[in-house]
Amino acid sequence: MQRYDYDLFVIGGGSAGVRAARRAGELGKKVAIAEEYRLGGTCVIRGCVPKKLFVYASQFHEHFEDAAGYGWTVGKSSFDWQTLIQNKDAEIDRLESLYNDGLEKADVDIFCGRAVLEDAHTLRLSCQDMVVTADQIVVATGSRPSEHIALPGFDLAIDSNDAFHLETLPKSILIYGGGYIAVEFANIFHGLGVETTLLYRGVEILGRFDRDIRRGLHDAMARKGIRIITRDNLRKLEKREDGRIDACLHNADEALAFDQVMMAIGREPNTEALGLDAAGVETDQKGAICVDEFSRTNVENVWALGDVTDRVQLTPVAIHEAMCLIQTLYHDNPTKPDYGCIPTAVFSQPEIGTVGLSEDDACEEFDDLDIYKSSFRPMRNTLAQRDERMMIKIVVDAESDRVLGAHILGPDAGELAQILAIAVKAGLTKADFDSTMALHPSAAEEIVTMYEPSYRIRDGERVSA
Amino acid sequence: MQRYDYDLFVIGGGSAGVRAARRAGELGKKVAIAEEYRLGGTCVIRGCVPKKLFVYASQFHEHFEDAAGYGWTVGKSSFDWQTLIQNKDAEIDRLESLYNDGLEKADVDIFCGRAVLEDAHTLRLSCQDMVVTADQIVVATGSRPSEHIALPGFDLAIDSNDAFHLETLPKSILIYGGGYIAVEFANIFHGLGVETTLLYRGVEILGRFDRDIRRGLHDAMARKGIRIITRDNLRKLEKREDGRIDACLHNADEALAFDQVMMAIGREPNTEALGLDAAGVETDQKGAICVDEFSRTNVENVWALGDVTDRVQLTPVAIHEAMCLIQTLYHDNPTKPDYGCIPTAVFSQPEIGTVGLSEDDACEEFDDLDIYKSSFRPMRNTLAQRDERMMIKIVVDAESDRVLGAHILGPDAGELAQILAIAVKAGLTKADFDSTMALHPSAAEEIVTMYEPSYRIRDGERVSA
Repeated sequence: MQRYDYDLFVIGGGSAGVRAARRAGELGKKVAIAEEYRLGGTCVIRGCVPKKLFVYASQFHEHFEDAAGYGWTVGKSSFDWQTLIQNKDAEIDRLESLYNDGLEKADVDIFCGRAVLEDAHTLRLSCQDMVVTADQIVVATGSRPSEHIALPGFDLAIDSNDAFHLETLPKSILIYGGGYIAVEFANIFHGLGVETTLLYRGVEILGRFDRDIRRGLHDAMARKGIRIITRDNLRKLEKREDGRIDACLHNADEALAFDQVMMAIGREPNTEALGLDAAGVETDQKGAICVDEFSRTNVENVWALGDVTDRVQLTPVAIHEAMCLIQTLYHDNPTKPDYGCIPTAVFSQPEIGTVGLSEDDACEEFDDLDIYKSSFRPMRNTLAQRDERMMIKIVVDAESDRVLGAHILGPDAGELAQILAIAVKAGLTKADFDSTMALHPSAAEEIVTMYEPSYRIRDGERVSA
Repeated sequence: MQRYDYDLFVIGGGSAGVRAARRAGELGKKVAIAEEYRLGGTCVIRGCVPKKLFVYASQFHEHFEDAAGYGWTVGKSSFDWQTLIQNKDAEIDRLESLYNDGLEKADVDIFCGRAVLEDAHTLRLSCQDMVVTADQIVVATGSRPSEHIALPGFDLAIDSNDAFHLETLPKSILIYGGGYIAVEFANIFHGLGVETTLLYRGVEILGRFDRDIRRGLHDAMARKGIRIITRDNLRKLEKREDGRIDACLHNADEALAFDQVMMAIGREPNTEALGLDAAGVETDQKGAICVDEFSRTNVENVWALGDVTDRVQLTPVAIHEAMCLIQTLYHDNPTKPDYGCIPTAVFSQPEIGTVGLSEDDACEEFDDLDIYKSSFRPMRNTLAQRDERMMIKIVVDAESDRVLGAHILGPDAGELAQILAIAVKAGLTKADFDSTMALHPSAAEEIVTMYEPSYRIRDGERVSA
């Protein structure tokens, strides 16, 4: 006799939720998933995927420029925002339907609408006006852009969700924030011809990244023509008579006028109106669901995955958490997600790819480091007369020779970081890097041909090499 | 008292020779180098570097096409071969001068002209009409494109050296050969708008590469519009009255007419008129200098490096041989070059990047293999409506779980192969790949998310997975 309607009920059809539901379904479990907006979640619908399509779009004008040095004469080019949006939307529709198909093939019941917990085993489906029960429940409702409610005029600004559906491309934009979303959109808008200003209250953009890489990107963006203001803050936003928006800063007397202002000040977990209280599920002060190392909440049969837990807000991490949960729940193999050596990219222009420890973070953990740095002009930029350099930095534990971190600024840095992650995660040494034959001509060959440290750090102090 | 004019005399200013001379000079040795053409050798002057610049040039027309799906309207474009050649030549001049500067900085005497051995310690410098002596001698004279002397009309054809200096871009070209040089130039000419035919007598292009990758590239090139003829051979070339060239094939009655015919049938070592006989240095039947594992010829103080030894004809290998020789000669540390796991690329379009064993080669050495294959459309191609897929193949020893080979066909495959080489060379396992977190969205994330084999090979027989 079956005690519950479902073995597993998943709330939220994003990266984590869909993976958990699909895998459980494939194992023959009776599974349902509820999604109130669109299958695919932030990643597919209004995050990684459309963002990267925008990045591609914003890179073409540099291709056109670079072509001249290679013998090409290119006629006048123009960009139509509507075409990009339409084609992007069609691609997102296609991907969403693949998610749908995958779930249907795994016999997962899909409920369009919100599912609200009534107790630890009971869910009310708002759109269907019905109640279902489930043995195990996964909350994977993701996150959304934070609002800057304290800022006067905050509702004049758009956020990253809105940016994917702007009706027209603004002539000018102010982006407020210093994280990867702010930086990526600054590059996107600039590349599409928008006069772009990036405002960040901190000392340097991209706080968690390696210092040299952050500065290198800042310089490269500024050289391209993106205005970057740091160590300043918004006082208020005001609508102007001409329809534009005045942004008043602390350190400037006169307001700056923009067609659009975009906030990118972080993301917060979607935990409201889910019935978490009714089920007794605890959240932290930021509103994120508290989980143990196995993604279990304080309620035994309720689990939480992905952004809603505010561990590491990345798609592959959410998917990994889902895969671990499937092991824990259905393979009698309790599995903790592994958060070591997560490679990340910033799809800026130039791009950042990174894995492992920054120099500063490594300094906290290790007394003696060898730092290898290289800066060079990628070959493609030579005939293009593009004065943009690539930077590679390798952080090595001097005692064990282990490579602790690898940081790249330049073309395809994300792709390179993905592969470097295999080596760094496996604990390979600088000697392993050195014994690898170069592949010529490539940018990546620099990574295996940096034979002498640029400098050393001994007992936390920088000494020359 | 000094017995010889020089501690080290290097014949040939290519990748191997310049590196050996420069390093020895930096160690305080008295060093000379002789080069009869231009410093930089094949790689810089008429190989890797100008070739890759041509590749970049030939990729732009696809950028222009792809832009439309991303919202760009691009005016009519045209290509001027002379501009490319001039800008390429200027860049090569710049690189050559860097080689010159590096040698001068290391106090190496540079002789422009041929150096001919008179005995094992004596060299005649033809241009200077002088004789010098040296304790140690390195022959690093490289290789050149083979001529197809047996073919009637062979002298109507150009080779890769000529291709870098063509006065005009032909309207049509026949490239004869199936190796990487033939394939790369076929893609270059096609990308620049030349009607291109590739003729190869074998069954499939790119003999030493993995079977699936070879076929995948063949199909992709054919879809782009490159005509590929395999299993046929040239009978003769004939000049036509209109100035074009008739190519007569074995399996076709009618001759095919082309503006240009290019031969790319391999390379042969430059060992003529060097005085090798006078010094007693042995060559093999192909004319390559015979060396032992330390790059030493049969004459104790004469060494040979790079293409002239016909070991592995790649720039980084030649440089590695030079670095090993410096260890052997001047650091009291006899060092054999390491030829294991050399990553290589074919800068075709799409590109090939590969390291380690192909499936077929792995089958020769291992009974049980797990093969992981993935084929997908890179994200950039989606909005571009470009129907070109990326292919990734991982060959794993089923017994040890060690990754034996990794093969990629697609954008930046060479860059990816360079980094993968670190992991493959270090003997990492498929489990190491699997435990690496994905970086999304990237193409390379496929490499760490192929959880199930596509098929298995057991006792040499393919079985399903």
